[in-house]
Amino acid sequence: MARAQTRDRVLRATVRTLASQGYARTTARAIARTGGFAPGVIYYHFTDLDDLFAATARFTSQARLERYRAETDGVTGAVELVRRLRRLYAEDGAEGHIAAVQELVAAATSSTRLAEQIRAETARWQDFAETVLRGLLANTPLAALVPARELAVAAVAAYLGMEMLSHIDADHTTPAALFDAAERAAALADSLHLR
Amino acid sequence: MARAQTRDRVLRATVRTLASQGYARTTARAIARTGGFAPGVIYYHFTDLDDLFAATARFTSQARLERYRAETDGVTGAVELVRRLRRLYAEDGAEGHIAAVQELVAAATSSTRLAEQIRAETARWQDFAETVLRGLLANTPLAALVPARELAVAAVAAYLGMEMLSHIDADHTTPAALFDAAERAAALADSLHLR
Repeated sequence: MARAQTRDRVLRATVRTLASQGYARTTARAIARTGGFAPGVIYYHFTDLDDLFAATARFTSQARLERYRAETDGVTGAVELVRRLRRLYAEDGAEGHIAAVQELVAAATSSTRLAEQIRAETARWQDFAETVLRGLLANTPLAALVPARELAVAAVAAYLGMEMLSHIDADHTTPAALFDAAERAAALADSLHLR
Repeated sequence: MARAQTRDRVLRATVRTLASQGYARTTARAIARTGGFAPGVIYYHFTDLDDLFAATARFTSQARLERYRAETDGVTGAVELVRRLRRLYAEDGAEGHIAAVQELVAAATSSTRLAEQIRAETARWQDFAETVLRGLLANTPLAALVPARELAVAAVAAYLGMEMLSHIDADHTTPAALFDAAERAAALADSLHLR
């Protein structure tokens, strides 16, 4: 297997282990067990677990951001946007992306390297959310009223917090209810021809 | 010292220990060291650490909710509300309340008892946020358009997520920038006589 492919395999196994077992139990041995390779493979590609975790933050953030960008590109109405975001959120959950990220954010308090990476990834998501919001508000009377940057920052924070809370709310009704409400509000916005 | 006073002292020491050292390092010994009492005092009031953590979630949530209710009571404009929330948020930070809660939410994945308590406290804060929002929107054209419950749920999630991110953003500029933007938006809302 090519070097880059093995590296990706280690990164994907790290995401899955973080999501299913939490940061504290994500040892080299646990990652290797998830991925079905020898623990030594990890140290062939990464200097240590801190290096691996920073790379995992980059890897999963980049992969998901590409999906989010592709899916929200050319969206023409608020309802359509909310529907696409709902699908993307379901993907996040299925792949363990956001659960892994939440574990890494919590763990970042004890690692400068990881904290730096998480800050960089957070900024990328805030930029993305701001772009989507500005696109949606463009040519509407709300464009001048809504502080898009700060709303984008709040949206990224809400996304993380929602994931934290969904861990202890087994039926996951809260995100579903939020998407329902967002879709109703979006339908109203679309019908008012705000855009 | 009366029984209830000692109990409160243990609870306050637990909040401070969670906030400063994180959940994993919050042992009976660490709490006792923070509070300046013998570890045995903890077990006089609580059956085990799980019991203590659930009680701490209740204790700190109730104390802060009382302050939030008192401070937002009778608020007459959006700007005034944002200013009061900014002061309350600063108090949360100084007292370690929200940092402790974030540690407990993260820890709740491994304790049914704690998860149940966190769910109950989260519901209380969502109710509070909804009441404040409905009060602010009452008699404005926005009352029929804004999904107050879902916005309240999102606000509580954003608050938790903001705290997670602020841990790795040493200068704490993000919450300050959000309050600034909220105050500008509130000033606009107030000047438009939306209420």
